[in-house]
Amino acid sequence: MRPLSRLSCPFSALIPLHTQPIPLARSFTVTSSRRKYQIERIDPTMATTTTKTGQPLDRTILDSLLRRRLFFTPAFEIYGGVTGLYDYGPPGCALQANIIDTWRKHFVLEEDMLEVDCTMLTPSVVLETSGHVDKFADWMCKDPKTGEIFRADHLVEEVLESRLKGDKEARGQKVEIDEEKEAKKKRKTKDTKAVKLPDDVVKEYKEILAQIDNYNGDELSMLITKYDIKNPTTGDNVEPPVAFNLMFQTAIGPSSNLAGYLRPETAQGQFLTFQKLLEFNQQSMPFASACIGKSFRNEISPRAGLLRVREFLMAEIEHFVDPEGGKKHPRFHEAKDVKIGLLDRKVQLSGRTEITHMTIGEAVATKTVDSETLGYFIVRIYLFLVRVGADPKKIRFRQHMANEMAHYAADCWDAELLTSYGWIECVGCADRSAYDLTVHSKKTGAPLCVRETRSEPLHIEEWQVNLDKKKFGPKFKKDGKAVEAAVEALSQDLREKLAIDLDKTAKIEVDVPEVGNGKVEIDKTLINIEKRTRVEHTREYTPNVIEPAFGIGRILYSVMEHVYWSREGSEERGVLSFPPPIAPTKVLLVPLSGHQDFKPLVQRMSLKLRQLGISNRVDDSSASIGKRYSRNDELGTPLGITVDFQSVKDNTYTLRDRDSTKQVRSDEDTICAAIKSVVEGQKTWADVQKELPEFTQQEAD
Amino acid sequence: MRPLSRLSCPFSALIPLHTQPIPLARSFTVTSSRRKYQIERIDPTMATTTTKTGQPLDRTILDSLLRRRLFFTPAFEIYGGVTGLYDYGPPGCALQANIIDTWRKHFVLEEDMLEVDCTMLTPSVVLETSGHVDKFADWMCKDPKTGEIFRADHLVEEVLESRLKGDKEARGQKVEIDEEKEAKKKRKTKDTKAVKLPDDVVKEYKEILAQIDNYNGDELSMLITKYDIKNPTTGDNVEPPVAFNLMFQTAIGPSSNLAGYLRPETAQGQFLTFQKLLEFNQQSMPFASACIGKSFRNEISPRAGLLRVREFLMAEIEHFVDPEGGKKHPRFHEAKDVKIGLLDRKVQLSGRTEITHMTIGEAVATKTVDSETLGYFIVRIYLFLVRVGADPKKIRFRQHMANEMAHYAADCWDAELLTSYGWIECVGCADRSAYDLTVHSKKTGAPLCVRETRSEPLHIEEWQVNLDKKKFGPKFKKDGKAVEAAVEALSQDLREKLAIDLDKTAKIEVDVPEVGNGKVEIDKTLINIEKRTRVEHTREYTPNVIEPAFGIGRILYSVMEHVYWSREGSEERGVLSFPPPIAPTKVLLVPLSGHQDFKPLVQRMSLKLRQLGISNRVDDSSASIGKRYSRNDELGTPLGITVDFQSVKDNTYTLRDRDSTKQVRSDEDTICAAIKSVVEGQKTWADVQKELPEFTQQEAD
Repeated sequence: MRPLSRLSCPFSALIPLHTQPIPLARSFTVTSSRRKYQIERIDPTMATTTTKTGQPLDRTILDSLLRRRLFFTPAFEIYGGVTGLYDYGPPGCALQANIIDTWRKHFVLEEDMLEVDCTMLTPSVVLETSGHVDKFADWMCKDPKTGEIFRADHLVEEVLESRLKGDKEARGQKVEIDEEKEAKKKRKTKDTKAVKLPDDVVKEYKEILAQIDNYNGDELSMLITKYDIKNPTTGDNVEPPVAFNLMFQTAIGPSSNLAGYLRPETAQGQFLTFQKLLEFNQQSMPFASACIGKSFRNEISPRAGLLRVREFLMAEIEHFVDPEGGKKHPRFHEAKDVKIGLLDRKVQLSGRTEITHMTIGEAVATKTVDSETLGYFIVRIYLFLVRVGADPKKIRFRQHMANEMAHYAADCWDAELLTSYGWIECVGCADRSAYDLTVHSKKTGAPLCVRETRSEPLHIEEWQVNLDKKKFGPKFKKDGKAVEAAVEALSQDLREKLAIDLDKTAKIEVDVPEVGNGKVEIDKTLINIEKRTRVEHTREYTPNVIEPAFGIGRILYSVMEHVYWSREGSEERGVLSFPPPIAPTKVLLVPLSGHQDFKPLVQRMSLKLRQLGISNRVDDSSASIGKRYSRNDELGTPLGITVDFQSVKDNTYTLRDRDSTKQVRSDEDTICAAIKSVVEGQKTWADVQKELPEFTQQEAD
Repeated sequence: MRPLSRLSCPFSALIPLHTQPIPLARSFTVTSSRRKYQIERIDPTMATTTTKTGQPLDRTILDSLLRRRLFFTPAFEIYGGVTGLYDYGPPGCALQANIIDTWRKHFVLEEDMLEVDCTMLTPSVVLETSGHVDKFADWMCKDPKTGEIFRADHLVEEVLESRLKGDKEARGQKVEIDEEKEAKKKRKTKDTKAVKLPDDVVKEYKEILAQIDNYNGDELSMLITKYDIKNPTTGDNVEPPVAFNLMFQTAIGPSSNLAGYLRPETAQGQFLTFQKLLEFNQQSMPFASACIGKSFRNEISPRAGLLRVREFLMAEIEHFVDPEGGKKHPRFHEAKDVKIGLLDRKVQLSGRTEITHMTIGEAVATKTVDSETLGYFIVRIYLFLVRVGADPKKIRFRQHMANEMAHYAADCWDAELLTSYGWIECVGCADRSAYDLTVHSKKTGAPLCVRETRSEPLHIEEWQVNLDKKKFGPKFKKDGKAVEAAVEALSQDLREKLAIDLDKTAKIEVDVPEVGNGKVEIDKTLINIEKRTRVEHTREYTPNVIEPAFGIGRILYSVMEHVYWSREGSEERGVLSFPPPIAPTKVLLVPLSGHQDFKPLVQRMSLKLRQLGISNRVDDSSASIGKRYSRNDELGTPLGITVDFQSVKDNTYTLRDRDSTKQVRSDEDTICAAIKSVVEGQKTWADVQKELPEFTQQEAD
């Protein structure tokens, strides 16, 4: 019963502490239009996440690499920056474009989806109907003295954490400090006081922190009063929490009376175009639409780098399916044997978090996953994530708890990726039933439904009412319409009863509240009620929607963590092992030295690769070959070509693999063909190594 | 002197009527941040534009095709729609993606540009610095009785046009009615009164209409008063025009005190990141950044379909170049022999509009085009437009008039495409000098400049001042800093003069307004002034920016007009001859009939093409082969494969060309290879026809 964010979450529906997904882990919420994006933070005292090669992952080092190499950078930094807004630099931008390109091929092309590009500006009425204007909100409270604004759950969290820290100090226990988190805090919290708390209070605080996302406004207000929570900087009281809508508002047109918002998701545009898309698809069901584009959420206090931002790229699919017949999928047989790591609702309810690996065929057969279509998309999402570089061991699908889902949702699974911030929801995959099409159709009167010819006509026995309109009008005059409507609205049961009355008494009495004393008598010269058989040749239904929704920025960041590692002995330099089709730049061209003879070869090779559509970069700086390669390891460039004196003589080149640093050697055309097949994902480096002679000589720098 | 839109355009700077680009044509403006986007409307009485094959183009028929085939559709239509907002359906969306993909290959990959993805949400201060907050506006006036809002120039235009029409009627002349325009008008204009106007008034009205874009607020106000212009529906007076800023405003964060806007262009984000990009490029100049993304302009009353919308896709390049040495371009030799149709400033000033075709080498040599870099980009833009399907005969580059450009701009050329709306500016290519980097650097204090080691150190003779700081402090106490600053700020001339004074009188007098009576005496124990030589090893400069800015939606629409035609005898059905790499769907798969044997072949072929990354669509409806092909002509699908009984026997297929309807026949692999080479632009249909045997048999439907 909580369609949008936490605002409508009843206290009683909270998951009890002991059933929280990871004991000792706390979670915070990224509010979403219809579901909660769980980010479970890993407790700093617990084991940290690891790199691709299993080393402990130091996020500070990775972050510094990503910024130094301009994968991303805070937007408007020379103006002091704006929290929650980031720009992608050239490698980040290329990475994003390659992920999107892969997404288009994997979903739109492969599944014949109807891609649309809908506007971001959205008039208010659309988002009123969808429920966003009322419910897409977080709780905030204000310090009336300083004007400071706090996200209510963050404030409670900060104060209680600080007290627990003080308690630990007072008890002489070791206090783990999350340095990065401390550094990011805008406000300096007043120095923690080493005050010992009673044991039961410590337990209470921990319980509250464990479910800090789940409180609504009243509950947060209660917590603030009960635990005397104040502005941590000044010690002043804060006002009770008020709802803050997370959509960016604006006015469309010059008169300011057409209120609009920046869309918080791409889905609504797709729902509104449903009927046209159905027609474009020649009335054929099922089909899916897809939309890639920016969406916007005005977070109260964005945290967690690229994982929670105010402007972000989404890719959403709306798969429209007939709700009758169990939501089968015609290609389910292709997916059914793929094994997926699932964390279902039951396991979570029993307080555990172990992942069960099973085939999706099994999951659907056992009703763990609600339908074939949902199961099919879970597999397709999984394959996509692996294709763009996510580590299969760090992917799980977590089922939403009953109270996490909207009341109309039939089932919902999140693809979560394990990162140094914990398990991050990167893709939501929900069965949204017929909700969206229904509300928009109801509001606008536009049909958003499928009509299809029945293979067998449907015969329906029913009580039908016939009015003698010629007499009806003169008799009831201005009340005619109301009476007619009341008669038409009579239920089958009532019709049956009235038919008997009419037979007996030659008249009936009908309730028409808006006329006279609310009762109207109609005699049998005006009306006739009979049981007849109606034959229905067409069937009309509102499709259900299965919605896989991808947060591209979150996938991008998580993949960067998954592919990151460093070579033994040079831990300060990272390697980003992007799959070649995803890598920002595909080939590094390295002339052995600044010798003039190398220039034309490098230029020719660069041009040739460009003409093949393969992005490449020349590094003709004076650094050693090894250094130049290691610089480009940080950009994730999968292949390198060395141009040396032998190249000048016989037009052969060395091709180097980023991950293994192994090299092969062959002539220009062979090398280019090998590169193309690796970059397009048709061959792996292992294939190339089998086909071409290895080159083991050390290049003389 | 008109950096932003029309607000700062002085009356005297208006181009006199007789120098308007096309006599009898009227123009209206799409306001832009820094320049005017001219759209000259073709007078309905003049010859209309033509289709690809030279037929007269009926825009109503094309428009109906584009909507029926879901290339685009009004956004939120079931809610009544919002003017100026459109969604792209599947073919429009694929077309857009292919144009963008081509753009990336043509510019970013080919020219090694640094692509960035900057946020759309922009804090106010950035756009204050750029000048948008003050000047990015149009004039609007309000009817105080009804609350209706008019764009001032549109209102004047509408009323004067209506009077001219009445005059024509009164004179018994034929009145041409632009039906579409009439249909689009929201308000019903009061019925035109057939009133004859004096000849000189007719001339005055026509002169005003010819330059309706060029008036500023005061001038529009004057026109409204002088010609007694009122609300055409009610006849009420309107208020004088006020400036209406065209940016969508919003608030970032919860406190509402960080005002923000949706960016009106992508350029600012690139300028702000300049220093990081320079560093990423290893301090090497010149280089270009690029950004593809949506921008927003809150038009007062959008018209002209996809050509003027409130949310639109832009692709902008900022090429940073050293202003010294004539802005040469290292690849100019590759471009210099390309002939371009130019409409330069001089021709326009002399009241003519004929296009001069010359090589860009010549244009730069004769200073028609200001620099090599600008010329190089004009050629690259031209080649891009042709590559995506623009008709070379309908492309011209029009130079901005002096009063059209911002005061800091060195030169500006617009690539204009001829459509049924007239010549449309689709790409602007401006030399913006050092303006943007300078203003942002000045405002923030951040360096946005290049430092490079001089090949020859620079020796500068200058008067240097040395202060004895030990004595200086104690002597001037709290005034010390002010005095020191005043001394440091002394010009070379003054220093020379003061050196002589010091020599003569052992003291000098310096103006320090903030101290005492504004004069301060410093004696020679405290100061020493000497002529010395300073050696500068590094040079610091602010790069100039050449900015090609592409309106992708405008290009997309214009290309649809350019590639549209219809076959003789079936004028009601259109053909869209997109170049194969741009076409939304590449291949139509047509089984001869519903025979079961065809199914597996169609499926296998479809899968094979998908794996090659080639989008395809199956049409297995019962319509005749001819009808199925002609349906797909409207979607611009360049190739078709027919699966027939022969295919079942020997795995050969017929491949059909959309434009010529010629067919060839070969085996599966050969057909797929031919398709791939055509779709990737490596071969043309003519090549394929030469290589494969023609198929002339009529398929039995």
